[in-house]
Amino acid sequence: MKEFMIALQSGKTPLYEQIYQAIKRDIEDGKIPYGEKLPSTRLLAVNLNVSRFTVELAYEQLVSEGYIQARAGSGFFVCDLSNLFSGITGGEQLGIAVSQAVDQQPDIRIDFSPFAIDAVHFPYKVWKKRNREVMDENTDILTAREAAGDRGLRETIATYLYRARGVHCAPDQILIGAGNEYLLLLLIQMLGGGCSVLMENPTYMQAYEVFRHAGCQVNLGAVDEEGLLLSALDASLAEVVYVMPSHQFPMGTVMPLMRRQELLEWAAAAEGRYIIEDDHDSEFRYVGKPIPSLQSRDQNDCVIYFGTFSKSISPALRMSYMVLPRHLSERFHREYDFYSSTVPTGQQLAVQRFMESGDFERHLNRMRRVYKAKHDFLLKELKKRSWVRCIRGENAGLHLVVEVSGCRSEAELLAAALERGVRVYGMSDYRIVCGMREEPVTLLLGFGGLSEQELTEGLAVLDDLLTGEKEDG
Amino acid sequence: MKEFMIALQSGKTPLYEQIYQAIKRDIEDGKIPYGEKLPSTRLLAVNLNVSRFTVELAYEQLVSEGYIQARAGSGFFVCDLSNLFSGITGGEQLGIAVSQAVDQQPDIRIDFSPFAIDAVHFPYKVWKKRNREVMDENTDILTAREAAGDRGLRETIATYLYRARGVHCAPDQILIGAGNEYLLLLLIQMLGGGCSVLMENPTYMQAYEVFRHAGCQVNLGAVDEEGLLLSALDASLAEVVYVMPSHQFPMGTVMPLMRRQELLEWAAAAEGRYIIEDDHDSEFRYVGKPIPSLQSRDQNDCVIYFGTFSKSISPALRMSYMVLPRHLSERFHREYDFYSSTVPTGQQLAVQRFMESGDFERHLNRMRRVYKAKHDFLLKELKKRSWVRCIRGENAGLHLVVEVSGCRSEAELLAAALERGVRVYGMSDYRIVCGMREEPVTLLLGFGGLSEQELTEGLAVLDDLLTGEKEDG
Repeated sequence: MKEFMIALQSGKTPLYEQIYQAIKRDIEDGKIPYGEKLPSTRLLAVNLNVSRFTVELAYEQLVSEGYIQARAGSGFFVCDLSNLFSGITGGEQLGIAVSQAVDQQPDIRIDFSPFAIDAVHFPYKVWKKRNREVMDENTDILTAREAAGDRGLRETIATYLYRARGVHCAPDQILIGAGNEYLLLLLIQMLGGGCSVLMENPTYMQAYEVFRHAGCQVNLGAVDEEGLLLSALDASLAEVVYVMPSHQFPMGTVMPLMRRQELLEWAAAAEGRYIIEDDHDSEFRYVGKPIPSLQSRDQNDCVIYFGTFSKSISPALRMSYMVLPRHLSERFHREYDFYSSTVPTGQQLAVQRFMESGDFERHLNRMRRVYKAKHDFLLKELKKRSWVRCIRGENAGLHLVVEVSGCRSEAELLAAALERGVRVYGMSDYRIVCGMREEPVTLLLGFGGLSEQELTEGLAVLDDLLTGEKEDG
Repeated sequence: MKEFMIALQSGKTPLYEQIYQAIKRDIEDGKIPYGEKLPSTRLLAVNLNVSRFTVELAYEQLVSEGYIQARAGSGFFVCDLSNLFSGITGGEQLGIAVSQAVDQQPDIRIDFSPFAIDAVHFPYKVWKKRNREVMDENTDILTAREAAGDRGLRETIATYLYRARGVHCAPDQILIGAGNEYLLLLLIQMLGGGCSVLMENPTYMQAYEVFRHAGCQVNLGAVDEEGLLLSALDASLAEVVYVMPSHQFPMGTVMPLMRRQELLEWAAAAEGRYIIEDDHDSEFRYVGKPIPSLQSRDQNDCVIYFGTFSKSISPALRMSYMVLPRHLSERFHREYDFYSSTVPTGQQLAVQRFMESGDFERHLNRMRRVYKAKHDFLLKELKKRSWVRCIRGENAGLHLVVEVSGCRSEAELLAAALERGVRVYGMSDYRIVCGMREEPVTLLLGFGGLSEQELTEGLAVLDDLLTGEKEDG
């Protein structure tokens, strides 16, 4: 019984745990060998002057972790742990590397990100109010919602999409998810995995990466000032086309009605063809009315419509939705609704209140004015510049496309600007390289997150870089 | 010029839109044929007595939608829209089917769901406080976080996992995502797509479905009272094993140390083998201390650890995390961080505060007491029943596994209970059928979401059904 004279200490650690730890240590160290019978719980309790229950608890723990085993009627025996602890370092030595070298980021004063939104005019008060209301409902926020998203929110989105974008759909056709990439992953599964996709080039790179990593064959089609050249469709044998007809990213072009119709006809001409319409920033159009969605003209259930709250509310919300053709939404509800919803209940309910109360529409109207002012200001300023060759993609969205002269390469310009604390984005980042054709240096200048003051400062840095270079070259 | 005598109305619709609508209608109806030149903006403005800008706006809209096109120096011409409107029904007629038949659900008074949590003792006040604090930070909640999740939260989770589960990891190895299924999808991609997986049978069906739909080959291994039988590993040629060693779902078994070690040795024996450890409800263990994770004993970087807040906070949160071995986390940061985070910023920050303030630990301690009381009550009540053959999976988690006598089939019992307003769950729902072997009728009785009163009422219905049947059979 010597091995079991455990020195118990009064204090924070429960007695049963001290016993468990001591025996465990002795087993690991080989002090109590394989097959050895442990003293009965009664005997050990008497020896250690503790309750029998305390010893039972310790033994139970050792049993559940596999150190000892109970043999009915004959007591507890040490398990065979040969070779178990040979190579094992103590957990304490491995420790935990909490502090990691954070990526060295240059200090960026001005970021022309095309994805940034205005944080100054965000309706914090109203947003907080809607969230507070939802949290005050208490138990409702603890219940997970339907796989496709909360039904009430889907109804609200369906109504909104019909009024704002001419999209025809029942709430059952809507699938709310944690961002476009997740929804694309689901969609690719529903379409049967590695399908053949045609994308515009340049395009939205995250979607391109999702397709590629999901095993799809991605074909690229050139764009002109009316969007995707449809000749690429026949050449590619693609089954799925991914387009942004209302405001192509990054080019900013609008696909005219005629080409839209041709695209729809292509899809209708064969079974299993789909058009993915990414309507990412249709809310912000500064001249004329919004252009109706491609989905609104679809008579053959072949358009899959993608929308997002990333620009209309915030990218931090991680909330998008897709509108499936009826047969695909039925397939989702039949085969795929084992996928739990990816959006927190509380947030779904808050967004629904935000939309139904009219807050959303008021917010969009205000932001349209705010962004239009920034857009007009940047446009006016750019037009004064000698280094601006041409400007594209104006009148909508949150960025302008600017072809510039005065520097040898985009990469050089981006790096030089970054060194001055200004981050600008080059078209090459969104162009999937296909040939060796020399492309003109083209910048994407996002204005959503910048004030007039910041836009001015950022342009001044570009002035320096581009007119300086010019004099050299 | 007769076609262009548009009757403008004062009122809500802007003038430019009335002009746009009128011309669009005339083009669609064929009243203005293909190739026709439109009057100049100046002339039409004079005729309609509106500003020239108004007409320009209308024309611009028609151009952007492809109805007309501008030819430099010669004016605006109608585009060729042949066959465009032939089959198109008006959008208004298609309408919008907002009201859908909601699934007919029987009225359920008592739901023994193994996934339900206690909504009565949830710390609403504290939870609201943490959320309010985050929202008061304003602009911070509008910025999307890193692909892997907010760094601060990852640090907090790493510390928690080390203390609570013995998990060794740096924050960079943690990937926060919108639920286990999404994280599994990502992981499958990182492991190269359709890998060969071995799962316990019965198992967590959602994970099974994810593997299957992602093109993995899923092999099934039988379980005994120590968890997965490892003989299945050699038989299956699987590269990946999905296990729940600390508390198998649905069986409730704990894998003892010896088998854990054998499993780790299997993984270490060949390149590219992985163990996915789903540690879904390790927080709730009512006897002894929590069993350390399998990951804590992994010396070869082959365990991928999954944790979730679904039971420890709420399933409505949609928040899980996985801990990747170093080489996989490096692969994620190198190749896969184009996937935006799937969890809203505000919620990540709120959970971090909840954890760092000690609220989380206090909450877990309270819930452990609450659930233990329910667990003990249900166990005591079940032991009184003659129809209870045996009880498994006690001392942890939020459900008990009960083998019952007195009825012919699980399906019949479930249906009869449902008719009485009581939902119980059968083991067959979690067992992937492999053979024709007759299995005993086994229920999963979740107690997390039910009060003692409800547990009593639910058991009374089972009493009626099972002792009634007994007398018949």
